[in-house]
Amino acid sequence: MVAATTGTLPHPFDPLSLEEIRSAIGIVKKAHGDVFFNVVSLHEPRKAEMTAWLGKQETPRPVRIADVVVIGPEGKVYDGKDPKVIEQCEISGVPKEEMHKVYCDPWTIGYDERHGNKIRLQQALMYYRPEVDDCQYQYPLDFCPIFDSVKQEIIDIDIPKVRRPLNKVQPVNYHPAGVEKAGGYRNDIKPINITQPEGVSFKVTGRELEWQNWKFHIGFNYREGIVLNNITYNEKGTVRPIFYRLSLAEMVVPYGNPEHPHQRKHAFDLGEYGAGYMTNSLTLGCDCKGSIHYLDAEFPTRSGEIRTIKNAICIHEEDSGILFKHTDFRDESVIVTRARKLIVQQIFTAANYEYAIQWIFHQDGTIQPEIKLTGILNTYTMNPGEDTKGWGTQVYPGVNAHNHQHLFCLRVDANVDGPNNTVFVNDAVRSDAPVGSPENFYGNAFYGKRTKLATTGESATDYDGFTSRTWEICNPNKLHPYSGKPVSYKLVSREVPPLLPKEGSLVWKRAGFARHAVHVTKYSDDQLWPAGRHVPQTSGEPSMGLPEWMGDGSESIDNSDVVLWHTFGVTHIPAPEDFPVMPVEPITLLLRPRNFFTNNPVMDVPPSYASTPSQVAAKGAGVTDAADQMSKLAFTNGNGNGAAACCASTNGANGANGH
Amino acid sequence: MVAATTGTLPHPFDPLSLEEIRSAIGIVKKAHGDVFFNVVSLHEPRKAEMTAWLGKQETPRPVRIADVVVIGPEGKVYDGKDPKVIEQCEISGVPKEEMHKVYCDPWTIGYDERHGNKIRLQQALMYYRPEVDDCQYQYPLDFCPIFDSVKQEIIDIDIPKVRRPLNKVQPVNYHPAGVEKAGGYRNDIKPINITQPEGVSFKVTGRELEWQNWKFHIGFNYREGIVLNNITYNEKGTVRPIFYRLSLAEMVVPYGNPEHPHQRKHAFDLGEYGAGYMTNSLTLGCDCKGSIHYLDAEFPTRSGEIRTIKNAICIHEEDSGILFKHTDFRDESVIVTRARKLIVQQIFTAANYEYAIQWIFHQDGTIQPEIKLTGILNTYTMNPGEDTKGWGTQVYPGVNAHNHQHLFCLRVDANVDGPNNTVFVNDAVRSDAPVGSPENFYGNAFYGKRTKLATTGESATDYDGFTSRTWEICNPNKLHPYSGKPVSYKLVSREVPPLLPKEGSLVWKRAGFARHAVHVTKYSDDQLWPAGRHVPQTSGEPSMGLPEWMGDGSESIDNSDVVLWHTFGVTHIPAPEDFPVMPVEPITLLLRPRNFFTNNPVMDVPPSYASTPSQVAAKGAGVTDAADQMSKLAFTNGNGNGAAACCASTNGANGANGH
Repeated sequence: MVAATTGTLPHPFDPLSLEEIRSAIGIVKKAHGDVFFNVVSLHEPRKAEMTAWLGKQETPRPVRIADVVVIGPEGKVYDGKDPKVIEQCEISGVPKEEMHKVYCDPWTIGYDERHGNKIRLQQALMYYRPEVDDCQYQYPLDFCPIFDSVKQEIIDIDIPKVRRPLNKVQPVNYHPAGVEKAGGYRNDIKPINITQPEGVSFKVTGRELEWQNWKFHIGFNYREGIVLNNITYNEKGTVRPIFYRLSLAEMVVPYGNPEHPHQRKHAFDLGEYGAGYMTNSLTLGCDCKGSIHYLDAEFPTRSGEIRTIKNAICIHEEDSGILFKHTDFRDESVIVTRARKLIVQQIFTAANYEYAIQWIFHQDGTIQPEIKLTGILNTYTMNPGEDTKGWGTQVYPGVNAHNHQHLFCLRVDANVDGPNNTVFVNDAVRSDAPVGSPENFYGNAFYGKRTKLATTGESATDYDGFTSRTWEICNPNKLHPYSGKPVSYKLVSREVPPLLPKEGSLVWKRAGFARHAVHVTKYSDDQLWPAGRHVPQTSGEPSMGLPEWMGDGSESIDNSDVVLWHTFGVTHIPAPEDFPVMPVEPITLLLRPRNFFTNNPVMDVPPSYASTPSQVAAKGAGVTDAADQMSKLAFTNGNGNGAAACCASTNGANGANGH
Repeated sequence: MVAATTGTLPHPFDPLSLEEIRSAIGIVKKAHGDVFFNVVSLHEPRKAEMTAWLGKQETPRPVRIADVVVIGPEGKVYDGKDPKVIEQCEISGVPKEEMHKVYCDPWTIGYDERHGNKIRLQQALMYYRPEVDDCQYQYPLDFCPIFDSVKQEIIDIDIPKVRRPLNKVQPVNYHPAGVEKAGGYRNDIKPINITQPEGVSFKVTGRELEWQNWKFHIGFNYREGIVLNNITYNEKGTVRPIFYRLSLAEMVVPYGNPEHPHQRKHAFDLGEYGAGYMTNSLTLGCDCKGSIHYLDAEFPTRSGEIRTIKNAICIHEEDSGILFKHTDFRDESVIVTRARKLIVQQIFTAANYEYAIQWIFHQDGTIQPEIKLTGILNTYTMNPGEDTKGWGTQVYPGVNAHNHQHLFCLRVDANVDGPNNTVFVNDAVRSDAPVGSPENFYGNAFYGKRTKLATTGESATDYDGFTSRTWEICNPNKLHPYSGKPVSYKLVSREVPPLLPKEGSLVWKRAGFARHAVHVTKYSDDQLWPAGRHVPQTSGEPSMGLPEWMGDGSESIDNSDVVLWHTFGVTHIPAPEDFPVMPVEPITLLLRPRNFFTNNPVMDVPPSYASTPSQVAAKGAGVTDAADQMSKLAFTNGNGNGAAACCASTNGANGANGH
């Protein structure tokens, strides 16, 4: 690590600027000569120092430090193909003159006990692509070369006992020419235009964003991608801290086919490749509608130059349907208020697959991390009539998509009304008293049972769908004036499959964080990534990261500065609908304020329409109406329903200035 | 029931027209004199007859039949207040001269064993409202009168042992004057305009809707509200049936406070009140944006007139984010396609609470029923410092909101590629083979374990979060050409709490449908409503509806015309954030095609942007770009990021006419 000097004054949470990266590279090159740059990234300020500065900016400004990972000089990039690979291609049925149609996805080897971790190795997932525009993953080859990235040579090839020659079926393509050939595009989708004529409702100062009482800093690093810091909500003038830092800190994608070498397919897309490094430039491809604000990302190249990912992050607002509504059935007095959300998004491509990571902020204090899974299934080849044995699905003739899980680890560095927090599980359970007993005569008694997670050992907890289990991050030092319960943010997460690789398995050992839905640790600087700082080729013996930090389980995490680690995700048994490109499958969870705000915090959002009983009695005088003036009838000719458009607006579109 | 004659030819699934309702009322009045009309609704055509007609419209058209429920003549509506109620009000601290400020929500009594079911009774949940525009539910009174609706008199008053006098705290109000008083509205929300300049992408013929390969009929009745019939998807020219009928068929809201008489609070909002009868006119209050199509609803009044609910149903499209995306990391060739959804919505007010029922159709064949819960908590009064004993939460001084569940029953009359279907549960499970064994050496093996539900008894199944359990409605007679698995629609539902009132409890007996997440029965005409046809004051001895139809559990439901009943919902432990009006809490589930379509069925949706490797190599020539021309930068001054708006469009907004 080197201290980077800079002439300007970036926010201490800001990613390293282009100049800072250059400066760090210069220092390293001067000291060590030509090396390969793997990482030049912000070494985040120590929390104690940072918290002091956030509270009172006259305290010393945290110094800017670059975290640098370099790799010693290596050989040249290997170009062309190894004769042994060509031989295998020919055995598979690819003629020698078509070697330019053979591609691989280079994956880190993960861990292979035959090769250990002394040599940096990659496994090459092999594919044939008959035409340059065909889908990359339709013609997998059945062998898997292993590449020594220091020597830059193939050191081994895994060849299955049963060979599966290249299949010859026609490709199915999703590119425009392919769709035209298959009958063409739908032509019955009329445009929906989303415009913001007065601009956006958020403000960005440097990398600090303010919107609807929220304020937070948007960082970005090579590993986690988006990092949100110092998240606060302004409740009627009181700035209330909620989270010190939020990020997606790790993930693992174990595949369920036990046949060698498929056990090596369990990518840690963050720890092995980096969600920041793989992030899409959103200049290519329109990923949002409306008025968008973008932030770029700057990284070092291997050789020590700078590469800029233009528009790595996008920020925009969306209408979010009804925020609340109530009609009094007596007189039909009514209030209806529309919701708005703010989305901070990045999309990264992990070889075949894409992940759109959305950090959604709601006006009511809810934060909703949402991940949209799309892209292309990882595929393997199969022979006609071959039994998949249930470990995969034939999604197209000759294409076997293996069962897999996507398990994500959300890191929640909590700061609910201050650093000292306690985590509880909350289970909705029946009263113990039997039906007919005085305490529960009619048998309907139930309640939310709260259990304190007092130590790291107790914190290792699993999801329980039967009790609709949630986790509450409480500040036990501050009770709600009405409910008497501690102020809290509640983790509501319903897609929480267990890690399906068994206890003691390779994945279980390497992805220790995924053994439970929740772990809680005491905050410690640099405990950021729960599968460990360096993930490639770890054996899991011992397990790195979170299992180390959990210690013997005896450490108290009660009323202290805690980090909650939450593993959630999906188990995916593929189907032909997922091929050749997968319609988005979203997965989402909520961090919700409970007993945190005095009352409903969004009553002050201007309603679309509001009438009170007294106004109804006076025949509508003074009704508040900030109706969306764009709403109109779909058909002017009626179809038997000639009602006028729903609301005649009397105020401006941003109105609702009262009665 | 009476046969209604009509001069026109409505679709057999259409609700009764105004003329048909009038005609039926006329016939009944002629025969029975003055009666009160409870129901005049379509008696749905017998399925066998209807299926024949749908297949071949030369077969006899199903005759139109009205289902009529009348109540014998009663006394006049009781007006004014019973002296015993006035006495209780005074004991509670409401002075005699303020009786006009006392209101009640009349609920059916549910069931009270002291009163049985020979007399039609209502329980009156009592509230005081100091000012006419104050929230209705802020000052609950502690006693509960019981009203004989035939005699039109109070026959009893339930008075708690511990009295709780009217509290005197200031109200918290969400109406405009209240918000102004508390500091006023936010003024930093800029408008988002959603326009469809070329109109909508759907077509409505009568009550049949066509959109993006979908076609279905939209019915509506007093009980269930929206009913969707004959849902099909056109796959490249082949019209494939999926569901014969979909509806929300029942719900129950049990409250968890065991103290008498709160056990009576377990409303069956559909069976006791009717989601159709309580539906909002969407003329008041702007509930959607864009171009909306509305359908009215017509019902009889008690006295046999007609009342029309204007705009009872709204239909509109929404942009739905990314449909799919993939970038080739080698050359950055990319495709990104935006999704669209269609929403058929009603909103009903059940006294204090509102339910927005959305039937969301996605382009990829997914149907997503979504319910947005909002409105006002049911409240009870509490004394200062009173212990809620965990059965409720003090959400405002003196206001106790009791724990409760919202359990909904979705009725799925399946027709997956034909009427003969079989239901399986699918559990994602680990291989039995131990780590280190030849079959599972690395311990990573897992698969989707399918278990056939062959009989009604076997079909009674619960959710299992640990196995990410789903239910597959399969057509075992039609296997997918690639996967070899039966074509299916899969029920993916993650919010499936068990019924928390205990086995043998009053609610358990009355809401038999809620004992399990899924039941499957053989189709039978008129088995529509799973708590029985007439719900008020049923004792649950025996349990009506679904428990009757399940029989002894031995009936085969394999490869036959089946109905799947799915109970899902939320358990709600209230918090102050929910008061005085609750921000929307959505609950959702999916019906997803799996092994149903040959491949991804949305490849033919025009992309926003598409470039292929050959185009990238030729420097972008012929790139397909149907970019949203409305997207623009949020800030023109850059904030350090001066990138141009993401896509320069070369085609029309609805373009993507290929390369």
